[in-house]
Amino acid sequence: MVVIERMTRPSRSHDRENVTPRVKPTLRISAACHLVPMSQPSVLTIAGSDSGGGAGIQADLKTFAAHGCYGTSAITALTAQNTKGVQDVFPSSPEFLEKQIDSILSDIDIKGIKSGMLFDANNTRAAISALKKHYLSSLSNSLPPFVVDPVCVSTSGHSLLDPAAIDVLLKDIFPMATLITPNKAEAELLLSRGRRREPALKIESIEDMLSAAEELAGFGSQSVLLKGGHLTVFSDDVQRVVANRPDLILVRDDFTSNGENMEILRVNQTGTSVSHELVVDVLYETSDKKMSILCRPRIRSTSTHGTGCTLSAAIAARLALGSDLTDAVKLAARYTHLGIETANPEIGHGHGPLNHFHSLKEALIPGRTPGNPYPLTTFFIRKSAKVWKAYVEHDFVKLLGRGILPKECFVRFIKQDYLYLRYYARAYALLAAKSSTFASISSATQTILSVLQEINTHKTFCSAWGISEEELEYETREEAATAAYGGYLIDVGLRGDSMMLLIALLSCLLGYGEVGLWLKRHTKENGRGKGGEGNEGWVVLEGNPYVEWIKDYSGEAYQQAVKLGLETIESRAAADPPSKVRLDEWFRIWERCTEFEKGFWDMAMVKE
Amino acid sequence: MVVIERMTRPSRSHDRENVTPRVKPTLRISAACHLVPMSQPSVLTIAGSDSGGGAGIQADLKTFAAHGCYGTSAITALTAQNTKGVQDVFPSSPEFLEKQIDSILSDIDIKGIKSGMLFDANNTRAAISALKKHYLSSLSNSLPPFVVDPVCVSTSGHSLLDPAAIDVLLKDIFPMATLITPNKAEAELLLSRGRRREPALKIESIEDMLSAAEELAGFGSQSVLLKGGHLTVFSDDVQRVVANRPDLILVRDDFTSNGENMEILRVNQTGTSVSHELVVDVLYETSDKKMSILCRPRIRSTSTHGTGCTLSAAIAARLALGSDLTDAVKLAARYTHLGIETANPEIGHGHGPLNHFHSLKEALIPGRTPGNPYPLTTFFIRKSAKVWKAYVEHDFVKLLGRGILPKECFVRFIKQDYLYLRYYARAYALLAAKSSTFASISSATQTILSVLQEINTHKTFCSAWGISEEELEYETREEAATAAYGGYLIDVGLRGDSMMLLIALLSCLLGYGEVGLWLKRHTKENGRGKGGEGNEGWVVLEGNPYVEWIKDYSGEAYQQAVKLGLETIESRAAADPPSKVRLDEWFRIWERCTEFEKGFWDMAMVKE
Repeated sequence: MVVIERMTRPSRSHDRENVTPRVKPTLRISAACHLVPMSQPSVLTIAGSDSGGGAGIQADLKTFAAHGCYGTSAITALTAQNTKGVQDVFPSSPEFLEKQIDSILSDIDIKGIKSGMLFDANNTRAAISALKKHYLSSLSNSLPPFVVDPVCVSTSGHSLLDPAAIDVLLKDIFPMATLITPNKAEAELLLSRGRRREPALKIESIEDMLSAAEELAGFGSQSVLLKGGHLTVFSDDVQRVVANRPDLILVRDDFTSNGENMEILRVNQTGTSVSHELVVDVLYETSDKKMSILCRPRIRSTSTHGTGCTLSAAIAARLALGSDLTDAVKLAARYTHLGIETANPEIGHGHGPLNHFHSLKEALIPGRTPGNPYPLTTFFIRKSAKVWKAYVEHDFVKLLGRGILPKECFVRFIKQDYLYLRYYARAYALLAAKSSTFASISSATQTILSVLQEINTHKTFCSAWGISEEELEYETREEAATAAYGGYLIDVGLRGDSMMLLIALLSCLLGYGEVGLWLKRHTKENGRGKGGEGNEGWVVLEGNPYVEWIKDYSGEAYQQAVKLGLETIESRAAADPPSKVRLDEWFRIWERCTEFEKGFWDMAMVKE
Repeated sequence: MVVIERMTRPSRSHDRENVTPRVKPTLRISAACHLVPMSQPSVLTIAGSDSGGGAGIQADLKTFAAHGCYGTSAITALTAQNTKGVQDVFPSSPEFLEKQIDSILSDIDIKGIKSGMLFDANNTRAAISALKKHYLSSLSNSLPPFVVDPVCVSTSGHSLLDPAAIDVLLKDIFPMATLITPNKAEAELLLSRGRRREPALKIESIEDMLSAAEELAGFGSQSVLLKGGHLTVFSDDVQRVVANRPDLILVRDDFTSNGENMEILRVNQTGTSVSHELVVDVLYETSDKKMSILCRPRIRSTSTHGTGCTLSAAIAARLALGSDLTDAVKLAARYTHLGIETANPEIGHGHGPLNHFHSLKEALIPGRTPGNPYPLTTFFIRKSAKVWKAYVEHDFVKLLGRGILPKECFVRFIKQDYLYLRYYARAYALLAAKSSTFASISSATQTILSVLQEINTHKTFCSAWGISEEELEYETREEAATAAYGGYLIDVGLRGDSMMLLIALLSCLLGYGEVGLWLKRHTKENGRGKGGEGNEGWVVLEGNPYVEWIKDYSGEAYQQAVKLGLETIESRAAADPPSKVRLDEWFRIWERCTEFEKGFWDMAMVKE
């Protein structure tokens, strides 16, 4: 019998270079490690607990999470609360509040802090004391960005903080704050209390907001965000104010379709929840006396419970992530706006919570980890387990391993493989045509050259088995199994993008590698044949006419190509994670090609 | 002057049918509304607060959120805690715990409950009382799935619950539970206490676990998950047990690459954190006496703070989402495993928290909402604002609107447009070739037929301006602007998938629609010309040689095509949301084509 020479398929490989250039290295590395970046900063909220989950530390923790931050919390008071209101309050002792903050700051590196409802003057002092203790050495320098939501007036309008607590806010907390975020009622209360005058001040217009923001800054915070959610404003009001004060900066949100040259979007906006009213916030930064107006459409919604908590938490998260203040406020406002707009109105019977996770979606394939660096391939193989097993443990392989595969079966296989390789080479040519860099064009071309070399080996081998080149080239009838598989590769190559084509080429590459390792593991001479199923060491190398075939696919060169192929597919999938639609499509391609591979060996085994 | 007739481009449209069949209607509808499904069930945790954020209600809320559930929480006790340990505890009063649960259950429809650290016998009784009060009418029927994590032994081994509290757990909570989830030490304590015997029982092997699980079920819970995280086990141990007990069900996780026929993955798994030790959990279901073993590789990690909380919260979330128990436990175990494997070891100095958000990623384009049903297009236009404006407010358009565009400019435009439409038709032919349904083949073909009709109009029009068909077809030199744009369309069509090709065709479709609306808005006769920039009503229709051009693009038919195109692109993007890599690529295509469009009119305006 003739010993088969050189039947390796170096061509059945994905060269990593071929397919990665579209993906930036930095992205690839980070995606390879983690979906959530390792740098996720830790953020602290000091606030009340809302059992109903829509406000307080619950809203804050949800918001931090939605921003990729690690959330910690010191609870000032428990509330028995739901979407209809606060039924009761159970405060933490000042000592215990201080202990909570201590525990956190003494262990975790906090990059941003927000405070919400501080409950009373004693708890407010306790919070200050804990912060000062930790950031004692040089308070103004080492304190991370600190956003103070001066929760002191409930939605229904009555004061939540006693006058003594408000004084502590004004005198001790505000001077430590990067930003304070009062709403209209809170600003009125704070300014009235700060000025110690009656009757209470009223904020009724954007102009009032501008002066109130400036005055609030007088209490010592680095900046003030005065929220105008409770003020009714229209576009004309904004235009009037902006026209009169050229120093004002008008900040528009990037994601509303109310911009210039967007008439096509505006006319097709049919939502009934959109009103012509605007919500206007005013941001004043003391350092450069910069005054900004943030505008967005008002949403008609009852899902507004926890809006203030969410906004200030989002700002703290953005600051912890390194945004500058204007960006942080703008992005946080957008986040909160979308939270209201996408809220589920069916939670609770009163003012429902926001949807804090509107901008996250499920990752269908887990991130690559040391424990499983090939999650996509694992998914493919597991989900196609039955046909995959039928392919890689095919009778063709078993008989070949034992050296008793009938010659005519192998000849049929090798002849059809010759025809298959023509499709295979053309598929790589398509891959080259879909390339966007010279590196990937070159890599695909190298594979084509390898195939061209491989068919010479085929010819040599076939002639040794009595098949002339002429017969191979012109007289071999293409079997349906070959035509179906080859045609499918070309079809996917024409229909889809390069990733789809790579996946179509993957089953062939990986399957032959798996077969190689399987045969190697069960080799008699190897002394390592532990099948566990009573067929240990059934693979015979000595005198086996197919010994080179076995050695080639289990050998270092081919296994290296397998590894490269795995790396290519996995790094591309990690950098460009598939949606459900795309993953379904990828899997269908993988499964189809796995079926074709099995069919290829079925065809070789058929008795003519 | 000749009045231009019929220059509409019905062909410059995306037919919705053309591109949606790949997307199932249900998916499209849900994606159009929300990224987080509206059905997100609400879940309740009754547990302690961990200021450090890694365990307790904080871990539970993070876990619920990661599963798309809405989290609520009743706090049994505050702890001053970090990754190094618990520094102090501040309990809620039993009355206030009951009030918190009351507030939640009286307002929010809870689909799953978990309990964690209940602190003491009184608080445990308070929790039971609140649950019983609400689900009084028929407790066993109306209580939602209830997962009890019987937190009673700390990691360091000492008891957290006094004997009285343990008795309440055993007698009153367990009979209400769908599942209890003790670890080894807790199971030992509970069984010893339950049997009232000394010396304490010890669980040392899988066999011990099996009998302990069965015995624990005797306390009345519907099922028992006995966690073996503190037991050292190897593959051989599992195989021995499974071989001896054929009734055992072995549950393997789908995402570990330690399965059958996955040798290629195993040999390439180089992670150092992977050990050969296994973690084995035992799940016993009383109703059908089903005993399952859940196996996964042990991870060497210090980021294990809150593992038990996370697992039980994940099971409660899965049950609330409708999973059956085995699936819920299996998926929750995978979730927790990945949380440890992807944890950020840099949070805190002791046993760090898990990464609760490993399987979520950022949605780069917000969900479609009534307020902004076209978020992808909004993103495209905003990000390309400058060149988009230069295109849709091009001098060509302004002069055309005024009726003073030189004839030779328009002739140059119309001749090149004839050549451009050939590329345009071919691009739709490519789209048809990339289709996977007859509906989309038909739709693309209809567009080609429209283009073929449109070029007849071109010919008629040109002949009226003295340009013969011969000149148009054979003697018009293709300008670089035309060749560049046309070649690009074909290139994108060959390189990418159908979505990329649709985006390449989008700028033309939308831009002409925007121009149409812009001209309409500034029309003198319209009486509605409010430009706001001092050029109100500058568009002249009477006597304008290009009046039909203006009417066509601002008309109902073309605007309907714009709407359809928007809907197509947005619904596809919502159903198949882009990754960062893909969105960047999409934007580059959009921006490029917008530049080409501007370049096209630049070319028309050049003086020869």
